[in-house]
Amino acid sequence: MKDIQSERDYRRINIRKVGVKTISYPITVLDKARKQQHTVATVNMFVNLPHEFKGTHMSRFIEILNQFHGQIDVQSFHRILEEMKVRLQAEAAHLEIAFAYFLPRMTGQDGLNAGRYECRLHGSLAQADDLELQLTVPVSLPLKEQLASGLPRSRGHWGQALVAVRFRHFIWIEDIITLVERAVEQVIGQEQGQSRGELSGSLSVEFLTRQISASLAEVSALKWFSVTVENLFEGYSTFATASRPVSLPLNG
Amino acid sequence: MKDIQSERDYRRINIRKVGVKTISYPITVLDKARKQQHTVATVNMFVNLPHEFKGTHMSRFIEILNQFHGQIDVQSFHRILEEMKVRLQAEAAHLEIAFAYFLPRMTGQDGLNAGRYECRLHGSLAQADDLELQLTVPVSLPLKEQLASGLPRSRGHWGQALVAVRFRHFIWIEDIITLVERAVEQVIGQEQGQSRGELSGSLSVEFLTRQISASLAEVSALKWFSVTVENLFEGYSTFATASRPVSLPLNG
Amino acid sequence: MKDIQSERDYRRINIRKVGVKTISYPITVLDKARKQQHTVATVNMFVNLPHEFKGTHMSRFIEILNQFHGQIDVQSFHRILEEMKVRLQAEAAHLEIAFAYFLPRMTGQDGLNAGRYECRLHGSLAQADDLELQLTVPVSLPLKEQLASGLPRSRGHWGQALVAVRFRHFIWIEDIITLVERAVEQVIGQEQGQSRGELSGSLSVEFLTRQISASLAEVSALKWFSVTVENLFEGYSTFATASRPVSLPLNG
Amino acid sequence: MKDIQSERDYRRINIRKVGVKTISYPITVLDKARKQQHTVATVNMFVNLPHEFKGTHMSRFIEILNQFHGQIDVQSFHRILEEMKVRLQAEAAHLEIAFAYFLPRMTGQDGLNAGRYECRLHGSLAQADDLELQLTVPVSLPLKEQLASGLPRSRGHWGQALVAVRFRHFIWIEDIITLVERAVEQVIGQEQGQSRGELSGSLSVEFLTRQISASLAEVSALKWFSVTVENLFEGYSTFATASRPVSLPLNG
Repeated sequence: MKDIQSERDYRRINIRKVGVKTISYPITVLDKARKQQHTVATVNMFVNLPHEFKGTHMSRFIEILNQFHGQIDVQSFHRILEEMKVRLQAEAAHLEIAFAYFLPRMTGQDGLNAGRYECRLHGSLAQADDLELQLTVPVSLPLKEQLASGLPRSRGHWGQALVAVRFRHFIWIEDIITLVERAVEQVIGQEQGQSRGELSGSLSVEFLTRQISASLAEVSALKWFSVTVENLFEGYSTFATASRPVSLPLNG
Repeated sequence: MKDIQSERDYRRINIRKVGVKTISYPITVLDKARKQQHTVATVNMFVNLPHEFKGTHMSRFIEILNQFHGQIDVQSFHRILEEMKVRLQAEAAHLEIAFAYFLPRMTGQDGLNAGRYECRLHGSLAQADDLELQLTVPVSLPLKEQLASGLPRSRGHWGQALVAVRFRHFIWIEDIITLVERAVEQVIGQEQGQSRGELSGSLSVEFLTRQISASLAEVSALKWFSVTVENLFEGYSTFATASRPVSLPLNG
Repeated sequence: MKDIQSERDYRRINIRKVGVKTISYPITVLDKARKQQHTVATVNMFVNLPHEFKGTHMSRFIEILNQFHGQIDVQSFHRILEEMKVRLQAEAAHLEIAFAYFLPRMTGQDGLNAGRYECRLHGSLAQADDLELQLTVPVSLPLKEQLASGLPRSRGHWGQALVAVRFRHFIWIEDIITLVERAVEQVIGQEQGQSRGELSGSLSVEFLTRQISASLAEVSALKWFSVTVENLFEGYSTFATASRPVSLPLNG
Repeated sequence: MKDIQSERDYRRINIRKVGVKTISYPITVLDKARKQQHTVATVNMFVNLPHEFKGTHMSRFIEILNQFHGQIDVQSFHRILEEMKVRLQAEAAHLEIAFAYFLPRMTGQDGLNAGRYECRLHGSLAQADDLELQLTVPVSLPLKEQLASGLPRSRGHWGQALVAVRFRHFIWIEDIITLVERAVEQVIGQEQGQSRGELSGSLSVEFLTRQISASLAEVSALKWFSVTVENLFEGYSTFATASRPVSLPLNG
């Protein structure tokens, strides 16, 4: 019987991405305050497959992942990518890791002792090296009054800021979160001032996107950023997105 | 070779539920204002399997579903259950249908022309007949001011009320939604009054649950209800649940 | 009190995307066999916002959507985009519509009378016009034997093919689905032949991706396509992606 | 202005559940082989609220959770429930913890070094104490042949077994998983035998449910169990559920 694989010349078709995805994997990440933090990641790993190869060795992705025992930092991230290129004989290797990152809450004293931030690292190793960090930072409206009864309540979940950055130098995840949360607080403070002691509810996604962008544009450790602010309604949301390279200061 | 099925006496083990689930199916439902509404449902169908039967005929569930062409109302719902009991020779038949129900918005003039309500019908036919309707009604805080600029914004998604009811007499889904939304508005109106023209943000899940319960307790078309009110925080929520039979009025 | 909006020159920051997203909306779409099909869509609508504008008019997105009453076809899709550009004074308008599309099953006689295909239309109107259709087509392994008992069972959900296309001429969604399903069946048929009457389980994501790509490369109504085939494992999957422009035949 | 809370007698309505839910929290759990395992949990905590109380103290739930630093085992689980009853002055306290549990794979040598099992602990402290453990164990079909090329592939994700148990004595999660996986392997082995060296694809959810039930019925450390086996099709699934108390052996 003839082989379908030789009947059609499959070599004409390059496979741009081949690999494994949505692997659930326990990892440890570095943490500014406490040195090491345990969490659970979802991992995607893939390479290109030139037209002259029939297939890739899927099990090697898993072997490489196992070899690093879930220790994820900037160094190991790069070494995993290099290992993928070598062992899978690929020209381009890609690694995407998404995980929940927990931080002692900086604002508020009554809540959880740790806030949860969704975090993603997307890296590529081809002709050039590329690494993008994505962070989701929740945006809340503060409550002006506390009732005597002490009944707990919220104004609901206002929305979130999704920030993506590419690095010129190393910078802690914590420092980016702090910068975003301060930009949000500054806007809310201003809003409250305008409406004489009460929150006007006039926060716009456009204005918050620009305010966070203006803050990120001054961080010389970054070489590029993107900001998306989202405001939740009943079942849908409004959003605004801006993105820009970061210029180095003249005396930098 | 010996058959594993005869080695172990599988007949000792009754199967309480056997069937199909998460079938995606286009349906039409009756609608108070417009007579008929097209939507997409997720369907679960299952029966009991007495110990003396080896297995059920899964394809018959699908055949019965196809036979009704997605026309779902109180009558057809009951006929599907009866058909399941007969054709699958079962003592108990269960049907669960979840769908998005769209209604012209009753409050607000700037939004979508139709609000979306998650709706579930759970029915059983065994010794007795049982039908439960579940509805999710979004809860929002109103905005007191509209800025001159006309920038759109929300205070975020405050939360939702999940209402479940069992019927004594027929009552439109629309009428239950209206009743829940009025109870919420009454509470918000009172809150705004208390704090002299501004919303205090003091809505509690406990109070809203009781207020909606008090309204439902007066609807004699119902014979039982359950209310869960949920208030969203950043990534988690607070909630309260109450449930009660509905008494008939003395002169009812 | 000074206005934060005038303190910082917000005009330096262009907003690349501003709009509404994840709106749930009942729509009707054209259908090759039955002319019209009712389903429920999730809609994203956004435009660019040049730096000299403070914000956009979010409510106009909703007004435009309401104005078309959920009638979605190639013509209305384009008219919605034009309306967005005009009414929001934008240089670029974007519309994304995702919906479940139901088709009479072409293969198999025992299952649901309609298969569900996830479908997405992404369109942009800027200097040039762009429209991309994305389809998810389930991939199943056939069962060789039917037991005398008639017990229903599957070999599980093998995976899926995600196909994206850009059009040169109009082509029905049904025709793309048929082409993908035939390519899959051809590979499975060949596999069964190789292993003398039984399925070898040797389907690879690389080979299926190339086979579907080879089929799409011959469809002159398309000007570009991308194919991703995914094979599910326990909790993760393997995948392969190829994409290419489609050449016109010399005598086309 | 009159208080709406005193106008309506809210005291008539008991709140059956009040608390917090879907809190994301890093935890450590005990692990048979490695002593301690770090993972991320989703936590629900709630109590009853008698009619004479206006509301509960939501922040105390969080305080109690923080106080245990995420150390979850059978002892601490019970102490959290007791703390909830005391500090919230409740008659009934409920704690639900869901987490991913990772185990060295017992079957197969080529895959991930750790399998992921969804795990839930639901406990209540009222008149009586109740603790239920729920586990999701993936069910896969083995591949009979390995192609010379070494291309990785699967027959897809066949389905899963959801097992719930109540304990008479302590038993490791690992031991329940092993028992379920062995019952599945035994059925698959038998199936392969029947069809002379090839897998018939005839596994039924009914038969697997009974087989796993028969194995659990012999574990005297359990006092009750429930088994649901699910077989995935394209977009939907078939399932069967059985549940039973476990009898003690006469000489136990």
